[in-house]
Amino acid sequence: MSYSAPVKDIAFVLNNVIGLANLAKLDGYEDATPDLVEAILDESARFTEDVLAPLNWSGDQQGSKWQDGEVSTPDGWKAAYSQFVESGWGSLSFPTDFGGQGLPLTVAAAVQEMWHSANMAFGLCPLLTQGAVDAIEHHASEEQKQFFLPKMVEGSWTGTMNLTEPQAGSDLAAVRTKAEPSGDHYLIKGQKIYITYGEHDLTENIIHMVLARLPDAPEGVKGISLFIVPKFLINDDGSLGQRNDLTCVSIEHKLGIHASPTCVMSYGDNAGAVGYLLGEANHGLAYMFTMMNQARHAVGVEGYGIAERAYQKAVAYARDRKQGKTLLGKSPDDQGIINHPDVRRILMTMRSTIEAMRGLGLECAAAFDQAKRHQDEQVREKMRRRGELLTPLVKGWSTEMGVELCSLGVQVHGGMGFIEETGAAQFLRDARITPIYEGTTAIQANDLIGRKTARDGGKGMGELLDDMRSVLDELKQSDHLDFKAISKRLEPAIASAENATQWLLGQNDATLPSATSVEFLMMQGRLAGGWMMARSALAALKLKQEDGSDDAYLDAKIMLARYYSERMLPLVESAEVIITEGAESTIALDAAQL
Amino acid sequence: MSYSAPVKDIAFVLNNVIGLANLAKLDGYEDATPDLVEAILDESARFTEDVLAPLNWSGDQQGSKWQDGEVSTPDGWKAAYSQFVESGWGSLSFPTDFGGQGLPLTVAAAVQEMWHSANMAFGLCPLLTQGAVDAIEHHASEEQKQFFLPKMVEGSWTGTMNLTEPQAGSDLAAVRTKAEPSGDHYLIKGQKIYITYGEHDLTENIIHMVLARLPDAPEGVKGISLFIVPKFLINDDGSLGQRNDLTCVSIEHKLGIHASPTCVMSYGDNAGAVGYLLGEANHGLAYMFTMMNQARHAVGVEGYGIAERAYQKAVAYARDRKQGKTLLGKSPDDQGIINHPDVRRILMTMRSTIEAMRGLGLECAAAFDQAKRHQDEQVREKMRRRGELLTPLVKGWSTEMGVELCSLGVQVHGGMGFIEETGAAQFLRDARITPIYEGTTAIQANDLIGRKTARDGGKGMGELLDDMRSVLDELKQSDHLDFKAISKRLEPAIASAENATQWLLGQNDATLPSATSVEFLMMQGRLAGGWMMARSALAALKLKQEDGSDDAYLDAKIMLARYYSERMLPLVESAEVIITEGAESTIALDAAQL
Repeated sequence: MSYSAPVKDIAFVLNNVIGLANLAKLDGYEDATPDLVEAILDESARFTEDVLAPLNWSGDQQGSKWQDGEVSTPDGWKAAYSQFVESGWGSLSFPTDFGGQGLPLTVAAAVQEMWHSANMAFGLCPLLTQGAVDAIEHHASEEQKQFFLPKMVEGSWTGTMNLTEPQAGSDLAAVRTKAEPSGDHYLIKGQKIYITYGEHDLTENIIHMVLARLPDAPEGVKGISLFIVPKFLINDDGSLGQRNDLTCVSIEHKLGIHASPTCVMSYGDNAGAVGYLLGEANHGLAYMFTMMNQARHAVGVEGYGIAERAYQKAVAYARDRKQGKTLLGKSPDDQGIINHPDVRRILMTMRSTIEAMRGLGLECAAAFDQAKRHQDEQVREKMRRRGELLTPLVKGWSTEMGVELCSLGVQVHGGMGFIEETGAAQFLRDARITPIYEGTTAIQANDLIGRKTARDGGKGMGELLDDMRSVLDELKQSDHLDFKAISKRLEPAIASAENATQWLLGQNDATLPSATSVEFLMMQGRLAGGWMMARSALAALKLKQEDGSDDAYLDAKIMLARYYSERMLPLVESAEVIITEGAESTIALDAAQL
Repeated sequence: MSYSAPVKDIAFVLNNVIGLANLAKLDGYEDATPDLVEAILDESARFTEDVLAPLNWSGDQQGSKWQDGEVSTPDGWKAAYSQFVESGWGSLSFPTDFGGQGLPLTVAAAVQEMWHSANMAFGLCPLLTQGAVDAIEHHASEEQKQFFLPKMVEGSWTGTMNLTEPQAGSDLAAVRTKAEPSGDHYLIKGQKIYITYGEHDLTENIIHMVLARLPDAPEGVKGISLFIVPKFLINDDGSLGQRNDLTCVSIEHKLGIHASPTCVMSYGDNAGAVGYLLGEANHGLAYMFTMMNQARHAVGVEGYGIAERAYQKAVAYARDRKQGKTLLGKSPDDQGIINHPDVRRILMTMRSTIEAMRGLGLECAAAFDQAKRHQDEQVREKMRRRGELLTPLVKGWSTEMGVELCSLGVQVHGGMGFIEETGAAQFLRDARITPIYEGTTAIQANDLIGRKTARDGGKGMGELLDDMRSVLDELKQSDHLDFKAISKRLEPAIASAENATQWLLGQNDATLPSATSVEFLMMQGRLAGGWMMARSALAALKLKQEDGSDDAYLDAKIMLARYYSERMLPLVESAEVIITEGAESTIALDAAQL
């Protein structure tokens, strides 16, 4: 169950598809040269392969354990986390002012894929910390930043997101946790559930970001504030002070990510947990979205990260395992099941979809980097729109496909896939949470059709479809047969996406669009993946023409793009029919008839 | 986590879609009147709801345990199995000569759905027994039948299928287990894996059906024989004799069906296990298919059985759980998440697909019943062809969809779905084995394109498509708007299936068809499901016209058919493109490029 980080594939996308060199021209990203980034990727590969990956299965089997309010992580996790902190892996994209390395999010996302491939349950801990850092960096007072950020950026304190309560999951308007003013701070009382790494033994302190209501707060989401609630209070000299009034009451027994403790947290069982208001009162929802948007992108990265691991395991098994005479094997020695055409189908589906998702995940990160650093305000604005439009696709589509691909990974193993010790089933169990947390696919789809499409009258979507048409034009200038095959499916797929978008924009209310919003999200995700794959094919052909030394690799890139177009883009066309014809029947029955 | 058997839905299909009354006209099936069958369904509902369903979760958590070669099933299983035997649930479709009830397979399949909904890990035990009974009934000597069948039919001895060895999974040509002649019997030596209920404490004896090779047997599948190998030898007076030389070496640690022991069986560690040859030497593969075909159909039933349970859980949660203001709720009291349009989409997808799968599963069973009992030889022949054609669809499509629907069931629960105690995750874990055992989906697809389509030059497929066109004609005679909507999608879907079939038949060798065989299977399965749903809609309209007392129920049947057509049949159209355009790119890379 070893892991080999796909450094070459990741560098190919960064350098040749996304255009890392252009990012490195932006003020503040000068360090992100291709050479430095490849060195980082190599170093990250070593760390994730040698330190994180070997703990994945044992961590799953052992799980984190709760006893009397304390949570112990599996054997080896403390040492691995220490190495993680020492190597600075958590701080790549954070501001240099607080000890970060100031690299583009694009580079950080490339590295984070490796965490989740190697050990998703481990990777969740820094993922949550990063969300908390983002919220503090953007919205806290200078004093709060100085107080919390240096330790959090280096990773010696971790962060959490405390949103959910039993009655308040997708609907945060229902949050009931209370915050009473008390001098320079607040006293927090309430219970939070599903708190990832809410308690653990990896670091000396944990900084909880907690949504709560002030006594005079308006009802609903307009009355939510965000508080910084440390596990241990911090003395003025920066040393740890007394234990705050908060405890981990229990941890959940889950389908997967067993090593990642999912905590029920109780705040203020005694006097109240000391919390510090972040930014302004009643603006908590907006601040939470700062954490959340970053986390949503990161969960999308998890989706393809775990699928990459499942793919590696499946392809290794398929090379090794022999069953029957194969149609594609070239000799008696070449009879691994990889040479059965249907196993190829599964592996091509996994590989091409992973590459499409990785391309889109990095494209989205690059859009945010440009939105932050580009000198031209109009470009910044457009790239912000682009990043925000792509985020629900990266989160929703990549996680749904991540589950599907991990399930295909099980299938390649036949009966062995169902045996836990094989390890293929763990990837499926772990992946299954990704379309749920940080907002279910339905929540992403709602965001996509509402805030990201209808609100700007389809402007951002129109820009995206225009960019796709430019790629289509480029493809059409080539006589390459594979490019013709890609165009043949990309062209009608773009038209279908355009039609579905127009249908959506033409609706009088949200009911019918909501009934097909997930179809719409999957359609746009699949198409955006096809756009990235077409760009990958174009980049591969260009490199081949420049230098013929790596043809087998580059030809594979082109063929994977063609396969993706022929296998996935027809589903974009059928989605148009499903969306425009099927919305009414979806909601036609009374609830009682179900 | 209660279960409520969908007796009304099942009876609707049997009486109004399949036409149970016609089956009851066949010689030997006179007892299968609608009244008797409804009484059986009601009784089965009580048994599965009250006895099997309550043991499902505890059985999963406790699991079967192995110690020193003995396997103990979870608490309550022995008592439940005794009740199962006493009530005669295992013997419905078996010949009356050996204590069976002689009912159509169609009725037995309707009852078996309930076993798997209530408790799939339990249902597997009689499922395997039935396969063994079938093989003995069809191929054993009269003496062997008298010896084994009465106890097996009543269920007081269970049966197993011993095919797989570590090097011989899908490829049975590689079976190495040996059988040496020794007087009136054979001595069996070898190891078998993945033996469902290979050892347990539910009955006093277990009858193993074991594939093995005689010393002089030809290589490959033509040298496989099938043996009856009882755990305890049987004395001439029918009493149990000495323990046979076979042991359960260990049981597997699996993703799901924890209560069903998956055994590693060792035969002949000492002198050799006494086995009795079934039928003729070297004909084992053909006999095995007798067991297997019945078991494949039964596993397809598992696919929709477990999905039905997942649906019931999801719809109950969706009525109860409140999150946010819904678009479809009619009052402040009517705000369960079932009134969010996307939750409706999931529930409609689950419900309509389950009804389509149930329809097809029962249609396939009815074809086998007609093939067995119809007075007209031509009809028998056609129905045999039909049943054999539909079997890989029932097995392959219903199990793939079963997994997908159980995953959707998890999604309805949001974060709760990932918590094991909720129970939704168990259905997904259990369902995940169904596309693997009794032949993976790829094996079913291979059977479909080869033996079931290419071998007869598309005759059986042509007959099926013709029957679909007749239903289309019937739909078109109605002005009903929903029927127009169904026709609109059914017509091009039939055309696409026809085109894909012609493409398949036009290929020179099996390579390209094999590369898209699973797409072809899923396409034909989806379309056949649409055909059943269209028939369901026609039947519902007819009943409405005869008697207006149950309109809400019958209108729902029509709307579910429309939803299914609009949501699933566009995928049949896109499958034509995927199959005919995408086969080449699937296999274009060298294995080394993956």
